Amino acid sequence: MTPEEFRRFGHQLVDWVAAYREGIRELPVMSRVAPGDVRGRFPVAPPQDGGHFPEALEAFQNDLLPGITHWNHPGFFAYFPSNTDLASVLGDLLASGLGVQGMSWQTSPAATEVEEGVMEWLRGMLGLSAAWTGVIHDTASTATLCALLCARERSSGLAQSRGGLQSGDPALVVYASDQAHSSIPKAALLAGFGRDHLRLIGTDADHALRLDLLEAALAEDLAAGRRPCALVAAVGTTATTALDPLAGMAELASRHGLWLHVDAAMAGSAMILPECRWMWAGVEAADSVVLNPHKWLGVGFDFSAYFLRDPQHLIRVMGTNPSYLHTAQDGQVNNLRDWGIPLGRRFRALKLWFLLIEQGVAGLQARLRRDLAHAQWLRERIAAQPLWELLAPVPLQTLCVRHVPVALAGNEPALAAHNLALADRINRDGRFYLTPSVLKGRQMIRVSIGAAATERSDVEALWDELQRHAEA
Amino acid sequence: MTPEEFRRFGHQLVDWVAAYREGIRELPVMSRVAPGDVRGRFPVAPPQDGGHFPEALEAFQNDLLPGITHWNHPGFFAYFPSNTDLASVLGDLLASGLGVQGMSWQTSPAATEVEEGVMEWLRGMLGLSAAWTGVIHDTASTATLCALLCARERSSGLAQSRGGLQSGDPALVVYASDQAHSSIPKAALLAGFGRDHLRLIGTDADHALRLDLLEAALAEDLAAGRRPCALVAAVGTTATTALDPLAGMAELASRHGLWLHVDAAMAGSAMILPECRWMWAGVEAADSVVLNPHKWLGVGFDFSAYFLRDPQHLIRVMGTNPSYLHTAQDGQVNNLRDWGIPLGRRFRALKLWFLLIEQGVAGLQARLRRDLAHAQWLRERIAAQPLWELLAPVPLQTLCVRHVPVALAGNEPALAAHNLALADRINRDGRFYLTPSVLKGRQMIRVSIGAAATERSDVEALWDELQRHAEA
Repeated sequence: MTPEEFRRFGHQLVDWVAAYREGIRELPVMSRVAPGDVRGRFPVAPPQDGGHFPEALEAFQNDLLPGITHWNHPGFFAYFPSNTDLASVLGDLLASGLGVQGMSWQTSPAATEVEEGVMEWLRGMLGLSAAWTGVIHDTASTATLCALLCARERSSGLAQSRGGLQSGDPALVVYASDQAHSSIPKAALLAGFGRDHLRLIGTDADHALRLDLLEAALAEDLAAGRRPCALVAAVGTTATTALDPLAGMAELASRHGLWLHVDAAMAGSAMILPECRWMWAGVEAADSVVLNPHKWLGVGFDFSAYFLRDPQHLIRVMGTNPSYLHTAQDGQVNNLRDWGIPLGRRFRALKLWFLLIEQGVAGLQARLRRDLAHAQWLRERIAAQPLWELLAPVPLQTLCVRHVPVALAGNEPALAAHNLALADRINRDGRFYLTPSVLKGRQMIRVSIGAAATERSDVEALWDELQRHAEA
Repeated sequence: MTPEEFRRFGHQLVDWVAAYREGIRELPVMSRVAPGDVRGRFPVAPPQDGGHFPEALEAFQNDLLPGITHWNHPGFFAYFPSNTDLASVLGDLLASGLGVQGMSWQTSPAATEVEEGVMEWLRGMLGLSAAWTGVIHDTASTATLCALLCARERSSGLAQSRGGLQSGDPALVVYASDQAHSSIPKAALLAGFGRDHLRLIGTDADHALRLDLLEAALAEDLAAGRRPCALVAAVGTTATTALDPLAGMAELASRHGLWLHVDAAMAGSAMILPECRWMWAGVEAADSVVLNPHKWLGVGFDFSAYFLRDPQHLIRVMGTNPSYLHTAQDGQVNNLRDWGIPLGRRFRALKLWFLLIEQGVAGLQARLRRDLAHAQWLRERIAAQPLWELLAPVPLQTLCVRHVPVALAGNEPALAAHNLALADRINRDGRFYLTPSVLKGRQMIRVSIGAAATERSDVEALWDELQRHAEA
C-alpha cells in the first residue's frame, strides 16, 4: 500500500474506529453469532489479485462485526476490564507505522530507552522502590513463566547450563494458593516441575492463602528431601480479588530461600492509588511482580509490566549471544531480547507514553477511584437485599454475587442452575456481559467493574436488570 | 481520549506515518544516537495532568525519531527483512481500535474464526497439505519453545501431569545443527532439558546439518540409555540460509520417534513460490513448522505462523480450564488460549487479511521473486570479482560475503578487522545497514535483501558502496 493510499484509507479507518466507539452502547455486548457463522461468511480462498482494500472494511462491517464481543462497551462487566484508551491506540499505530524491532538497543535505541523510561515512570506511580527494574512482556502468563524459570534456575544453581531438570537433583517445588490463576499451574507445568511438585495451598473464608497450611506444606516437602523453590502470591485473585498475606509469605520465602513472585495482574493497576497500597504490603521483599496495564489502566493489549529485583539473573536465564546479534554498544546498554522469551520486540512503550500524556497520572487515578466507588455502591445495595449473597469481600472492583430465592435456599444444585440461567439470560439480552463462575463449589456471578465507558448509571441499570431477571 | 479527539489526532498521525514512509530514504538507516541520548531527552517523571497529546507527537519527532533505526528503509540489508506493509498497519489499527480479547471463542468469535480462516489461506499458499492446522504466535522463539514442550511431553507420556522432568526417567535429548538459531538452544534450556542434553550437530561445507553425525549422536545417546526426543531442522539458517536435509532428518525422526520441528522463520515465506518448495521437501513428515510472515512477507510484527499436525496434543500440553473461562460453546469451538503460552490474545489475523486483500497472493509472489532476483544479481557480481568471497550458497536472499585484499589473504585476524571496519563504515555512513557476523571463525558481512522498499537500484548502489569503501 502506498503512503498516499494509506492516507486515504487510514483516515477512513480512524473515522470508523471513532464512530464505533461513539456507537458502541447500541451494540449487544456479547456477540450473538453461532459457531461457524463468521467463518461461513469469510472467503474460502485468499484473493489472487490485490487492490481490494476498499471492500475489506465493508466486509468487516457486515460480516465480522457481528462476531465481535465488545470489551470497551459500558455494559462490559465480564472477566476483567480490558480498556483500550484511544490514546494508546494511537501509540500502537505509531509503533506499527514505524515497524521497528527493539530486540537490541542498536536496532532502535529509542525503543529500548523509552521502554526504560516509561517503566521507570510506572514504577514510581506504583510506589515501588528504586530497587525494582521493569520490562514489558506480552501477558502475565508469560511473565509468570519467566518468574518460575528464574526461580528454577536460582534454586538449582543454573542447572540449565548442565543437566537441566534432568540432573537427578532433589525435586524443586512450587507453591501458590488453590485460588491461583490458571496461568500459575500452567507455568509450573511448562517449566517442567510436574504436577506432583506443585502445591495449591488451601485458602481461608476470604479466599486468601492460609499461612499455616503453607508452612505445613513446606515442612513436609523439606522432610521428604524435596527443595522448596518458588512461591506465588496473588494480590487480587482472579475469581474474587482475594489478597494473599504477602508480608507473611515474604517471611516464609526469605526463611526458605524461595523465589517470591507476586501476581497482581488485574489489581496491580490500583497501586497507583496510595490508599490501595496496603493491599500489597510486603511487596518490597518479593523477587518479581507482574501487573497488566492492559487490563484496568487503559493501555491496549498487549502490555504486561514485569518488575524484578535482579535483572542480571533474568539475563543469565534468558540471554543468548549469537554472533549476528553482537553490536558495538554491548555492555553499555540493555539488549531487551535477553529479558524475556521472544527475540523480536514491538515498540510497546509508546502505548503507555501516549496514554499518560493524554490522561496524566491524576486522570488515571480519578478513573480508578470512580470504579472503586461504583463497586462499593453496588456492594451496599446487594448487602441490603436479603435474597442476594456476596461470596467474597470487595476490596477492589469485582463482586462475587448470587441470588438465593427463599424456595431454593440450601439447595446447591438448584441455586447453581438458577444463577447460571440468570447470567445467561442477561448475557443474551445484550445490554450487559457478566461471567458465571464456580467458587469452591458454589455457582456465582462475577461482576467486574472497570470498563472506562462504564458510568454510575450503567451500574445502576445492571443492578436493576439483575433484580428484574432474578425475580422473573 | 474522546472519539472526537481521536478523529483529529488520528488523522494527524496517519499523515505523519505516510510522510515518514515517503521520506524514509532521506534518513540514516541506522540510528546515530549514543547510549543514553534518547533517555536524556525523555521526561524524568510522567505528567500529572493530561491533555498534552499535541505535544507528544512533536516530542516524538524531535527527541525520539533520531533514536529510530529504520527497518522499512530501502537501504536496510541488516538482520532479516521485517516488512510492515501499510495495509497491515491498518489491520493492526482496527485490532487496537476494537480492543477485543480472543482468548476464548465467545470473547470475540470473529477473532478466532478469522484467525482460523487466514491460517487456512496461508496453509494453502505455502503448499502444505490439509493435515496441518495453523495458529498465530508472537514469534518463532515462542513457537519453538511450544514445539519443544510438546516434544518433551510426547516423549515422556505427559510427564507434566506427574513428576515433570523431575521424574528420574531417562534423560530426554534435543538435536539441531551447530547453525541453529539461538532461539533453539534457548528453548531447550527453558524447557528444562539442560545443555548436557542438547546436541548441536556439525554441518557440511554448505552449513547444512550432516546426517551421518546426527545418526552417530543418536546412536551414542541410545547406547548410553538416554532418550532422543526432538529434532529441529532449519529451512534457511539465520546465518547463511542453509537448508538442512529435511527428508533425511524426517526419516531419522520417524525411526526414533523424534518430534520433528521445522524452523523456517525467515525462509518460510518463500514457500508461497512453488519453485522454492524443493527447499523443504520432506516437510509433510514433520510434526510442527514455524515461519514468520512478519519478516519477509510484510505482515507487521508480531505475527508468527505455527503449523502443527496434532493440535490436540498441543491443547493437552497448554490447556487450562478454570471455571471462569467455561463458556456455553466449549467442545464445539476452538478456544485459542489453549494453543500457546499467553492467555490473552490480540486480533492479529486482521493484519494478514488486510495485507492479502491489498496485495493479493500474486502481488506477494511478485515481490519475493523480485528480491530473489536481486540476490542472484548481486551474487553474480560478487562471484565475478576476485577480491570478494562468498562464504555460503545463496538459495534465497541472504549473501554472506567478505572482501579479501591481496595483502591480507590468509591472515584471518587482519581479514576480520578489515571486514568489520568495512561494515562499520558503511553502517555509520547512513545509506545502508548491514550485519557483520562471524561464520565458523571467519568474519563476514551479511547482506539480507528483502525490504519492500528496496529496488534494484538500491542493490546496485550498495554494491558500489561496498567496493568503494573496501578499496578506500
